[in-house]
Amino acid sequence: MTLIDNEARHHSRGRGRRPDAKNQKIGQLPFAQPQLTLEPSRIISDDQIETIHQRALDVLEEIGMDVLNKEAISLYAKAGAKVDGDRVRIGRDIVEEALKTPPSEFTFHARNPAHNIQIGGKWIAFAPVGGPPNCSDTDRGRRPGTLEDNANFIRLSQFFNCIHTAGGGSVDALDVHASVRHLHIMRNKVRLSDKILYTISTGRARLFDGMEIARMARGLTPEQFLKEPSCYTVINTNSPLKLDDPMGMGIIEMARHNQVVVCTPFTLAGAMAPVTIAGAIVEQNAEALAGLTLSQLANPGAPFVYGGFTSNVDMKSGAPAFGTPEYMKACIMGGQMARRYKLPYRTSNTNAANMVDAQAAYESVFSLWGAIMGGGNLIQHAAGWLEGGLVASYEKFALDADLLQMVMEFLKPLDFSEDALGLDAMREVGPGGHFFGAEHTQRRYLSAFYAPIISDWRNFAQWEASGSPQAWQKANEVWKRALAEYQQPPLDPAIAEEIDLFVARREKEGGEKTDF
Amino acid sequence: MTLIDNEARHHSRGRGRRPDAKNQKIGQLPFAQPQLTLEPSRIISDDQIETIHQRALDVLEEIGMDVLNKEAISLYAKAGAKVDGDRVRIGRDIVEEALKTPPSEFTFHARNPAHNIQIGGKWIAFAPVGGPPNCSDTDRGRRPGTLEDNANFIRLSQFFNCIHTAGGGSVDALDVHASVRHLHIMRNKVRLSDKILYTISTGRARLFDGMEIARMARGLTPEQFLKEPSCYTVINTNSPLKLDDPMGMGIIEMARHNQVVVCTPFTLAGAMAPVTIAGAIVEQNAEALAGLTLSQLANPGAPFVYGGFTSNVDMKSGAPAFGTPEYMKACIMGGQMARRYKLPYRTSNTNAANMVDAQAAYESVFSLWGAIMGGGNLIQHAAGWLEGGLVASYEKFALDADLLQMVMEFLKPLDFSEDALGLDAMREVGPGGHFFGAEHTQRRYLSAFYAPIISDWRNFAQWEASGSPQAWQKANEVWKRALAEYQQPPLDPAIAEEIDLFVARREKEGGEKTDF
Repeated sequence: MTLIDNEARHHSRGRGRRPDAKNQKIGQLPFAQPQLTLEPSRIISDDQIETIHQRALDVLEEIGMDVLNKEAISLYAKAGAKVDGDRVRIGRDIVEEALKTPPSEFTFHARNPAHNIQIGGKWIAFAPVGGPPNCSDTDRGRRPGTLEDNANFIRLSQFFNCIHTAGGGSVDALDVHASVRHLHIMRNKVRLSDKILYTISTGRARLFDGMEIARMARGLTPEQFLKEPSCYTVINTNSPLKLDDPMGMGIIEMARHNQVVVCTPFTLAGAMAPVTIAGAIVEQNAEALAGLTLSQLANPGAPFVYGGFTSNVDMKSGAPAFGTPEYMKACIMGGQMARRYKLPYRTSNTNAANMVDAQAAYESVFSLWGAIMGGGNLIQHAAGWLEGGLVASYEKFALDADLLQMVMEFLKPLDFSEDALGLDAMREVGPGGHFFGAEHTQRRYLSAFYAPIISDWRNFAQWEASGSPQAWQKANEVWKRALAEYQQPPLDPAIAEEIDLFVARREKEGGEKTDF
Repeated sequence: MTLIDNEARHHSRGRGRRPDAKNQKIGQLPFAQPQLTLEPSRIISDDQIETIHQRALDVLEEIGMDVLNKEAISLYAKAGAKVDGDRVRIGRDIVEEALKTPPSEFTFHARNPAHNIQIGGKWIAFAPVGGPPNCSDTDRGRRPGTLEDNANFIRLSQFFNCIHTAGGGSVDALDVHASVRHLHIMRNKVRLSDKILYTISTGRARLFDGMEIARMARGLTPEQFLKEPSCYTVINTNSPLKLDDPMGMGIIEMARHNQVVVCTPFTLAGAMAPVTIAGAIVEQNAEALAGLTLSQLANPGAPFVYGGFTSNVDMKSGAPAFGTPEYMKACIMGGQMARRYKLPYRTSNTNAANMVDAQAAYESVFSLWGAIMGGGNLIQHAAGWLEGGLVASYEKFALDADLLQMVMEFLKPLDFSEDALGLDAMREVGPGGHFFGAEHTQRRYLSAFYAPIISDWRNFAQWEASGSPQAWQKANEVWKRALAEYQQPPLDPAIAEEIDLFVARREKEGGEKTDF
């Protein structure tokens, strides 16, 4: 952290900043969950929603899924599915039955109750980027992630009020052995953040270790833990139509512990799914319903989030594309399906750019347009995702924080009081006047409008005189200041010690077995 | 053009391009108008719409407008408005009566009938940036506009199929004297484009010259011209609550000739309007209704477009801000008001960035989000606007063409055929396979997805090896190639000669009188 702190201090004396900028804190909205105050968009009719539902049931019943987890196969079989080796054909009646039990909305508990969130309904939550092996910033370039980078992204997720989870999967910690990496990351999440916890499910030990640390972080007994969703995992089916061993195990065990399963088929149209968006959504829907069914067979009523991640590929190169018109359509259709099932809906803020340029920004805002208007309840990768998810970018994180705040501000209900309608102000100013000095303006101007973190609204001459900075340069300043301003949240020393002892013991035991 | 052609050729040998890129045409969607296939968004209730309507009527009735055009005053007076010097207080009955006559949708005629457009209903039309005194590109920098720059923006507007008008006001031609500038620009529009014509109304001679050239361009008699909307003008009220002499004249004369008035109050909240968005919309609505009333008093049934341009200012500096959350809200509310009146709705694609960086992109896409979901029928400044409208940017024009195409593609109805639902493809591929080689994919992949103009989807290594180009660099290539690929549309030589003679005569007569 010392390096970064010094850089931040050094940089704040640099060009292009107002004289008082050095002592100015980053302007943030308070921690709060936005709500979708407008109607979610619809691009398909109710009849078409039913068609997708029925075709997805056809897929599960006729083609079926390859399921590699023994317990999953046995749960499906017990419910009446036809099993033929790995192939499991799930009758529509089984799925329809499973659709009756999951909650449409639930409270998701953080170790700091002030950071609890609601999942479902009109509620929106933003989670940071997850999954990249690499990270980048414009000072140090693109590089494999380390535990310290991973920790920095946890700090950024804690610092920015618009982020509702602790993150922790933003970039992999490749300097720690894979067998015990999850232990160190999970401990860092609890230490460095007091927001919602994520736990990986790519292995039984990893999953149980994660749940155990999530339980200890909140000081719960095992019985209490079963009653309160306190961590979540993302289950990516192996599209097309395959559920591998750890993913099957993950759904079952998380459901049994009443923890949150976010089941997200990664259905790139033209690669892992049909080349048409309608077809890719049928497949997405079939796989999500297979996951939902398994979770409810394991524990009826377990919290489950319908995930959508349908996008297209560049058919010339096979490269995945994000924030495209097809992506937007898929986001909105996914939301329509999730609402059909009264399930919370997960979607993402994506782009395929290689740096934080105009492309990164327009693909991101198109993604957010689709995700928000699609009725997304949990927006994953909301901050920091670059290169189609291959990189966690410090600069993109700072830029996204501004984009997310703008979305939150856009969704904030309008002040429609008589005073806001402004007739007195217009009477005061009259035709041909101006409102700068009006009493109405003076009384309200300080908080009247959203003050952006990144946008540079200086005129051209001022901007040019300060070196013509681009938005990514401002973003570079902002993440450094964010890490400098970041404060570690308090943690009960007894809990900290309990987790330390647990991590030490599990490390000694070898963590998750790996073959390397 | 020679300079530009050479540059384009030179540049096409440069770095960062595929070997065959030199001969590759810019990928465009065919000329077509998109439709808003989803429901427009609503952020205020029907009751709140009525409240804004009533408060706007209160403003017009009680405070009134300062009207500086004598004929406008007399038209308002004859309808029963109370006149006190310049102040005109317009009773709600007068406005309600005027609201009965304008068309909710009409055909707008271009000199090439294939480029006619519909204004109103679900139809969307994109017009290029208008108004800036300066232009810029990254080769030649920022500079005052010339007639040649003006012509280049007409060429770009003609070239890009996603642009539905000839533009021609994209950048002022400061190298031509203001008295005759309009003649040269208008002639260029007819010569270089066959799309919808705009005419300026900042002076009686300019307006009548513009209408006359628009009439000649389509080979119409004066009587025919009165029957078919063939040009439009934008009337900016002098907010707050003032209508100056040329603007009053413009509304009256355009309406009398059955030409299109786009009445757009420029109500920056905190400067020319109350500091609240609700208040600014009340004022916008009052001024738009005053314009509507005048147009219908001059000629009941004349085509009229309700314009909204409410945004906020940076309350620290007074600088106008665009593409903000407040701007998005105003776009959507403006659309709700326009639909309340069954009037076509004009809005804009804006940003306040100083270069084509991430800020320019995210403010633009947020603008488009508000404009499109707000139900905008005519999106002005759709391509090329930078610096809050002080600059017409060649690079931004190319970038916006991509953004507009993406919006059009997003709005395109989904293929929902049985084949598109993809069950056969899923049967063919089966669990765990991939769709690249599937027959379904092979049959469809060439046209399956939108192919972007600007986005760079190469992987990081390829992108870095080609010099890490940013989106604005690609945009720089694209506008040059667009000008190189541009083809002047055919024009009947008799019409060309008639217009030449008219311009020569009017030039000799002195054009519009100026005092400099």
